[in-house]
Amino acid sequence: MSRRFPEVQPGGSLMLAWRIKDKNVLVVGGGEVAAGRILSCLNADAKVTVVCPFAGLNDEVAFRIAEKQVAHVDRLFEPRDLDRADMVLVAVDDPAASTVIWKLCKERRVPANIADVPAECDFYFGSVHRDGPLHVMVSTTGRGPRLAALLRRLIASRLPPNIGNAIEAVGELRTRLRRVAPSPDDSQKRMRWMTKVSDAYDWENLSELTDEDMENLLLFYPANKVPDFDVLIALRGGGDEKKLDIFDGSFGFSVGS
Amino acid sequence: MSRRFPEVQPGGSLMLAWRIKDKNVLVVGGGEVAAGRILSCLNADAKVTVVCPFAGLNDEVAFRIAEKQVAHVDRLFEPRDLDRADMVLVAVDDPAASTVIWKLCKERRVPANIADVPAECDFYFGSVHRDGPLHVMVSTTGRGPRLAALLRRLIASRLPPNIGNAIEAVGELRTRLRRVAPSPDDSQKRMRWMTKVSDAYDWENLSELTDEDMENLLLFYPANKVPDFDVLIALRGGGDEKKLDIFDGSFGFSVGS
Repeated sequence: MSRRFPEVQPGGSLMLAWRIKDKNVLVVGGGEVAAGRILSCLNADAKVTVVCPFAGLNDEVAFRIAEKQVAHVDRLFEPRDLDRADMVLVAVDDPAASTVIWKLCKERRVPANIADVPAECDFYFGSVHRDGPLHVMVSTTGRGPRLAALLRRLIASRLPPNIGNAIEAVGELRTRLRRVAPSPDDSQKRMRWMTKVSDAYDWENLSELTDEDMENLLLFYPANKVPDFDVLIALRGGGDEKKLDIFDGSFGFSVGS
Repeated sequence: MSRRFPEVQPGGSLMLAWRIKDKNVLVVGGGEVAAGRILSCLNADAKVTVVCPFAGLNDEVAFRIAEKQVAHVDRLFEPRDLDRADMVLVAVDDPAASTVIWKLCKERRVPANIADVPAECDFYFGSVHRDGPLHVMVSTTGRGPRLAALLRRLIASRLPPNIGNAIEAVGELRTRLRRVAPSPDDSQKRMRWMTKVSDAYDWENLSELTDEDMENLLLFYPANKVPDFDVLIALRGGGDEKKLDIFDGSFGFSVGS
């Protein structure tokens, strides 16, 4: 019976994309590692506060403070800094101080990461490639941060061009589809049709979908059809008359009903 | 000045690898989505409890319960189920009940994911490729789960073969290096040397490193050198005499001091 279901592969991490928009992230430390953490959090729209004496700030962190991208507390960490924190990232060269902060976070159930101390981490950072809505994260479960970065670059170089645009277009199409067919009862039909769309077009086609293409494509949803991409191109700039012809069989369909 | 530092790309998620070994994960629901969540958590060594009436379990969830891979509470959710939960994953077709659980989790500061309700999620799941210690996660920030899966398969098909073994080998080498040169003062030197190793060998070389190769390679660490991979092959099965010759200039070095 066990063969029927995927076998458990123990020893891994749970890979998650965290929504931290407007969440309070406390960064303790202002060096190079802190700078990387801060950028990751700003890219996810968090409210970041850096606790570090001014003299300890590196150029990038000082720049982000000067630009008011992050708040700054110009002193060493104090326990009250945790009062409003939803997440804590520690990057200081002081193992004893780090451990104290880690324990305080655990008492308060605040998720935390102590850089370079794997045992004092609720989560690890990986190496992330970002292209608009697309995130590809490489984690080696602590085996080699350098390898993770190398592999991230390798993966990025082999991704289809404009993949971010393709994903953005499919997201937009889903949103419009939910407007056209909003009923919760249609959720299965909507999902199946979106799958057909993803299967029928390649990444390049998807990245080229115009507003007009999407509107034309949605005309095929009620019949649960997806036209060849050539059909969408032929329909560009077409009037209603042309659109009335699309179901007469003169155009091919890459996916049948 | 702003050009000197990476620009913030807002609208993203914070991509993290969570350590949930021995953490209590509560899964509410026992359908197909729950089955996927459960496997992800088991792969990360969590203690999983599924709350769902027996009649609502799908085959895979029922199998994992029968195999004692997860604990089972055979009834609908009750608030006391949250008492020991470190993380909560809800996958039931009942928006009202889901919202109640979400609110309870927020009161208790327990991170939670309500499937199919993006607004009621502290984090999202992505599509993950796993090869031993390597995890590659694709997230489209909710634009298209289907695309994430397609892209994950595309990336996996283009990864170097045996990449998981290569990463495992590098992790093992790091561990051995820390044994050979354990002083915290050597941390910079260790990091720089590991970077040299990653840069000097390709993925295939790394995946082929034997125990003996690693021991031979570590002989080059004190001089901060990394030999050509051919040198490691030539040293295989060699006695101490052969090893004494390695610094006499007869072997090439791909990375100088």
